[in-house]
Amino acid sequence: MPANPTAAMLVIGDEILSGRTRDVNTHYLAGELTRHGITLREARVVSDDRDAIIEAVNALRARYDNVFTSGGIGPTHDDITAESIAAAFGVPISIRADAYALLDAHYKRREMAFNEARQRMARIPDGATLIDNPISIAPGFTLGNVHVMAGVPNIFQAMVASVLPTLTGGAPLLSQSLRVDRGEGEIAGPFGELAAEFPDLSMGSYPFVQNGAFGSNLVIRGADAGRISEAMTRLAALFPQAR
Amino acid sequence: MPANPTAAMLVIGDEILSGRTRDVNTHYLAGELTRHGITLREARVVSDDRDAIIEAVNALRARYDNVFTSGGIGPTHDDITAESIAAAFGVPISIRADAYALLDAHYKRREMAFNEARQRMARIPDGATLIDNPISIAPGFTLGNVHVMAGVPNIFQAMVASVLPTLTGGAPLLSQSLRVDRGEGEIAGPFGELAAEFPDLSMGSYPFVQNGAFGSNLVIRGADAGRISEAMTRLAALFPQAR
Repeated sequence: MPANPTAAMLVIGDEILSGRTRDVNTHYLAGELTRHGITLREARVVSDDRDAIIEAVNALRARYDNVFTSGGIGPTHDDITAESIAAAFGVPISIRADAYALLDAHYKRREMAFNEARQRMARIPDGATLIDNPISIAPGFTLGNVHVMAGVPNIFQAMVASVLPTLTGGAPLLSQSLRVDRGEGEIAGPFGELAAEFPDLSMGSYPFVQNGAFGSNLVIRGADAGRISEAMTRLAALFPQAR
Repeated sequence: MPANPTAAMLVIGDEILSGRTRDVNTHYLAGELTRHGITLREARVVSDDRDAIIEAVNALRARYDNVFTSGGIGPTHDDITAESIAAAFGVPISIRADAYALLDAHYKRREMAFNEARQRMARIPDGATLIDNPISIAPGFTLGNVHVMAGVPNIFQAMVASVLPTLTGGAPLLSQSLRVDRGEGEIAGPFGELAAEFPDLSMGSYPFVQNGAFGSNLVIRGADAGRISEAMTRLAALFPQAR
């Protein structure tokens, strides 16, 4: 079975790093990629800084099959993602006719001015494909293996829905979990031995505290449902009180 | 005024990248650092993979004044952060007497076995300082400029509270914001011109959709409260309907 395609997420925005805004796009993308059989291997957050964006996108696109970015494609002066991506690829960026026409029609319908700031959202790097934005029209774009999307969560989600069907997926990552009302320290020995017997699966332990007592969620992940069930049967036998 | 110290966050854990668990530690740390006058410049998430951890921690510790990590310091087989950090620094790791004594006393008090798995949590790289864990005792550690902490949010937060007072802070980052019930496209022109007049401040626009109408939160950030107020007065005059 071939390995699944890989991906990285790049969140762009000072507001995430200052603590003003909570990034919710990475978690959303992670779930969608897992279902689509693409392995999210890394995520990064950088500020609205041209050099930081260029360096991160070049590091990630060289290493992973797909890179998804969120943020920085609006009309204001701090929206510098599109030109930074163009610079990372070394291609020109200019107002593109099809993106301009989409936005022009949108603002005409709403009887709003298609002013210079809004026209910035029609600037697309040469060679890119547009990503549909059914919510606020201003498109994202795909350049090479980099998918550049909005930071506003509902627009980001709509753009992910536009892009994902165009990508090669793999086997969805499946998982089963078992809750054990004991601390990790009591579980770790036998759980580690079981994990060593199933090198084709990934087993993780996620501790929690509930009503002052320690417990653990044990998770078995893999692409083969039969193997996961086999391992889960063994795991349940190791911890018979679990649920 | 000297620039504030810088920091990066490194989240370690497959469960974040698979979408099973939402990372809440980065957002918490971001807020705490902002209050303490340390600028969070980058955040990364990597999986429970030794090479990925080593590469990320070495890249970040060379570039920023402080690096904070979360996750992977428990007793199970997938907890490989401590040995990966030791490898990144090229120092040995072994069971350390003071950490061992803390844990031994803790499990004796609770009449629980201090077994081999739990003893792993006393493994600390040579030259590190322990970080107090008032919740579940197993300590984090500081090695060089890297602060290694637990992934469980309440333990992470307790460890941040232990570490932050030991670090050199700067001027807290202050901010004021103005809500404008217009889309970014109408605001962008005058807002960008104002931003250019105040190069010592950072101005950002964060769009939202409410009841089908577009609006924007305009945020002015900086270390000087007087300058922020001056800019905010100008901003409010530009958008007199704002609140």
